[in-house]
Amino acid sequence: MAVAWFNGRLVDGFIPLDPADRGLTLGEGVFETVAVFNAHPAYLGPHLDRLEKGTEVLGIALSRSTIEQGISEIISAHRCRSGILRITATAGPGLRGLAASATEPTILITLAPWQEAMLNQPVKLATSAIRRNEHSPACRLKTLAYIDNILAAREAARAGADDALMLNTAGRPVCSTISNLFAIDGRALITPPVAEGALPGIMRARVLALAKSVDLDPVERPMTLADLHSAGAVFLTNSIRLTRPVTAIDNVQISQAASEPVQAMFDTLCREILRETGGDPRQADGTNL
Amino acid sequence: MAVAWFNGRLVDGFIPLDPADRGLTLGEGVFETVAVFNAHPAYLGPHLDRLEKGTEVLGIALSRSTIEQGISEIISAHRCRSGILRITATAGPGLRGLAASATEPTILITLAPWQEAMLNQPVKLATSAIRRNEHSPACRLKTLAYIDNILAAREAARAGADDALMLNTAGRPVCSTISNLFAIDGRALITPPVAEGALPGIMRARVLALAKSVDLDPVERPMTLADLHSAGAVFLTNSIRLTRPVTAIDNVQISQAASEPVQAMFDTLCREILRETGGDPRQADGTNL
Repeated sequence: MAVAWFNGRLVDGFIPLDPADRGLTLGEGVFETVAVFNAHPAYLGPHLDRLEKGTEVLGIALSRSTIEQGISEIISAHRCRSGILRITATAGPGLRGLAASATEPTILITLAPWQEAMLNQPVKLATSAIRRNEHSPACRLKTLAYIDNILAAREAARAGADDALMLNTAGRPVCSTISNLFAIDGRALITPPVAEGALPGIMRARVLALAKSVDLDPVERPMTLADLHSAGAVFLTNSIRLTRPVTAIDNVQISQAASEPVQAMFDTLCREILRETGGDPRQADGTNL
Repeated sequence: MAVAWFNGRLVDGFIPLDPADRGLTLGEGVFETVAVFNAHPAYLGPHLDRLEKGTEVLGIALSRSTIEQGISEIISAHRCRSGILRITATAGPGLRGLAASATEPTILITLAPWQEAMLNQPVKLATSAIRRNEHSPACRLKTLAYIDNILAAREAARAGADDALMLNTAGRPVCSTISNLFAIDGRALITPPVAEGALPGIMRARVLALAKSVDLDPVERPMTLADLHSAGAVFLTNSIRLTRPVTAIDNVQISQAASEPVQAMFDTLCREILRETGGDPRQADGTNL
């Protein structure tokens, strides 16, 4: 076990958890996964904004400065240049009863080693039978309820794919188990609105904001499977892998005709992260400071 | 904190959890809540059967005899006559990546004091805006992904109701946040099939099996809100509260015309539990052995 930061201090080994912690017993919590380059978390502000929004919906009182302090301490302790930071905030110990609220949140911060070849890797998708529930506010929060995504990811692996394409209950494509979904059609850079059941991804927001800089027009609209098959390119985004071109869906090849703007978007994101953190994701490796 | 049973031993206080436990980080786990009367868990066999089915779907290797041993030890330690046992089984510590599997499950068993006035209490429901996702296998497992239910329960509390009526994505009533749903129409005892998004409740199965003994015919079929409003009685079932008559849905009164068979079912369940455990739920209290 690597050193973790837990409720105010670094812990080497097991974390002392209250057995009534509603994060463990009911999945009542939210998390963020943040890439670290040059010992600086990328897009930390937007990640903490989203964490705060999630904890507000769940009624969890969070101290942002405590979390920032924890992040600083764990990065120092690990002495890593690049890595994958995970911040988990649960409701903490609570009474029995779903409507009951807890008083003292639990904060766990871990830092996993950077893995080479995470960025911009091509991905084959298999459509999952498990539908994304756009009728739940939870689908727009990064909560601990990841069972559907886990089952869908394993279903995709069994089908020989790298990730699952998730449709919402209306049968429209929304995301993968860990990524937002984009398609390029002419100059249009299309992604489903969050109302479709998509997580408001940090990288999704950056890609929409940077569209013009790669000569694309950002469009949020519901998509169909036909849109993906007729697109010039389809790609995924998330905070660790940035962009990933989709090469096939259910063993049907996806056009790479518009792969140039996808690559341009990846390079644009890397340059933006370099400016923010002082580290270029394309040169990230597992070495320590 | 009460004494818990954790991974093979009784623990007084915090449990030493691996920070990479996928139960805490991704809600990858299942649980059971079991009523204890006369220091004997009621319907333990069916509860452990369901726990095993859930862990099979999630790929968690469980030792039933270890759990039975843990239950025995925690009941002895608490010296309680009646109580609420909770068995949580998570995938345990695992690698990053949704499709990754863990090797050593985490088992947590807790025992909460019996609360008076839990049984057969009338309940007012408010229909939740959050839909039950019948397109997910998780809705038929008792997983740790309880966010939707938590948010729905709080929504109901804000509306002045005791619990939320949950519809599936097709708009048909399925369950409450913690209970299965039944309606009596003439001699028909109707409950939605699990394909509608209902949890295969232990008490649900007993109520269906015992229907004939209270002169009702068990029927599993999709239901509508109109069915509930035209029924002679509507009631909820779960393992702790057994039955509960529904008196209103969204402030509209529900008929109590068929309240006699609901009461008869409650008494039948209590007698069955008395035969199994030696304790009558109707006489359960918080005293120790």
